[in-house]
Amino acid sequence: MTDVAQAFVPGHLTGFFTTHSDTDPTRAGSQGGGIALSTGVTVTVHPAEQVEVVLNGSTVEMAAVERVLETLKTRAVVRGVTDLPLASGFGVSGAMALGTALSCNAAFDRQLSTNELVTVAHGAEVQAGTGLGDVVAQARGGVTVRLEPGGPHHNVLDGIPANRRVEYLTLGDLPTADVLGGNTDPIDEAGTQALSAVVEEPTMDSFMRASRRFSRESGLLTTDVREVILDANEAGGQAAMAMLGKTVFALDSALSEAGHDPTVCQVHHAGATLQTPHGV
Amino acid sequence: MTDVAQAFVPGHLTGFFTTHSDTDPTRAGSQGGGIALSTGVTVTVHPAEQVEVVLNGSTVEMAAVERVLETLKTRAVVRGVTDLPLASGFGVSGAMALGTALSCNAAFDRQLSTNELVTVAHGAEVQAGTGLGDVVAQARGGVTVRLEPGGPHHNVLDGIPANRRVEYLTLGDLPTADVLGGNTDPIDEAGTQALSAVVEEPTMDSFMRASRRFSRESGLLTTDVREVILDANEAGGQAAMAMLGKTVFALDSALSEAGHDPTVCQVHHAGATLQTPHGV
Repeated sequence: MTDVAQAFVPGHLTGFFTTHSDTDPTRAGSQGGGIALSTGVTVTVHPAEQVEVVLNGSTVEMAAVERVLETLKTRAVVRGVTDLPLASGFGVSGAMALGTALSCNAAFDRQLSTNELVTVAHGAEVQAGTGLGDVVAQARGGVTVRLEPGGPHHNVLDGIPANRRVEYLTLGDLPTADVLGGNTDPIDEAGTQALSAVVEEPTMDSFMRASRRFSRESGLLTTDVREVILDANEAGGQAAMAMLGKTVFALDSALSEAGHDPTVCQVHHAGATLQTPHGV
Repeated sequence: MTDVAQAFVPGHLTGFFTTHSDTDPTRAGSQGGGIALSTGVTVTVHPAEQVEVVLNGSTVEMAAVERVLETLKTRAVVRGVTDLPLASGFGVSGAMALGTALSCNAAFDRQLSTNELVTVAHGAEVQAGTGLGDVVAQARGGVTVRLEPGGPHHNVLDGIPANRRVEYLTLGDLPTADVLGGNTDPIDEAGTQALSAVVEEPTMDSFMRASRRFSRESGLLTTDVREVILDANEAGGQAAMAMLGKTVFALDSALSEAGHDPTVCQVHHAGATLQTPHGV
């Protein structure tokens, strides 16, 4: 069968992370913690002679998506539509890769399991250098704690059982590849400490505290992001920086109560899912 | 904090399974395959001096729920409300146990992670003898393939990426404990074969074929269930028996097209989730 297929993939905000390189991209990745968002990316795949990747109406270069198409031996036009800000720490590239894998599996009847499709998308994203942990968290949904890095055959995941409103505010873009290409020692050290704190106390309160501390100690916190976080804290709320982006995220109404005008969404409990009635 | 909390847990239809006993209930359980359903159980926990378990308005004995409350050192009234048939293979006891764990964690601020709560509910269900694999599948959502048995710290899960309408028809009850207490050799042999077939080809078509074959070869297929399955097959559709119950389930509209009057739901993509805005 070759048919049109569509998937929805939640956005994903990372609060803290470590980096793990490996010659095998299905073992490489990151530990860390993040929140799947009800705002995400809808990915539609149309089988076609010529590969094209379109995001919000514009043709784009997305190495992770192209790698997924190659791995699944498919040629298609991939269209992503999203309200999420781009290059701002919401996992849009991971969502495009994972949505492509799920949709192509249905459209081209590839008969792969969920773990196999997540492995393909995770490996493609790692090789493209655009993300380390978004794909596996976007496949799971909810608030994910990534205890061990890698794709589904190697990683270990847990979660914080939470149902919360999430607000976010983006102050500009910050391409992931630039940061991950530099010295990651301060990131890895701060990320390991943040993970320990959240494993010790798996609550949203602890997650937000660990994320704030991570942003300071990793050296990734920017002055403008710091000011917005302080606004929210002074108003009695919880905010932190989204990795990697110039984005502040907060629980409940911490940003709006501090006088900002954030976008509002929710924790998204489901992982990435096919939207078209498929799954032969 | 002691507060009221509520969780939704999807129903779960098992197509095939194997049994694995172990002195450690978090390692015991089953391999197998099943479908999480959009029809489920809403579980509400009110902290109280006296423990009481209420299902659809009637006080009931549910050993799994009582064990969860004991393990979490909580006393509460647990109320479950569901449209699912009882004792018919929909995982209602697992849903009650898991919903109690999630809700008590929020209501009593127990600060446990998702894996810890699923472990508590899985262990309680195994010790109560009312289920072996429902809880871990209900915590995950979607169509789950349980590759290795046990709770989240020991099992290995995969999924079939599917988005389908599900129909079901219940012909009577069949208490789980009676079957699991007998000789399980034919079940384990047929379950291992069914799992191999679905791992080889992780599609819904293969899942339904493996489930039908399992019901025959395990000796669990009853005459009345068999007749309804044949009706659906003759009408060109896919139906199988839900384990353990006198229930027929089918994909798309296979039962209604065969002239039956089934209940209709969908694959539920999310696992069990808190409904109250919680997760401190």
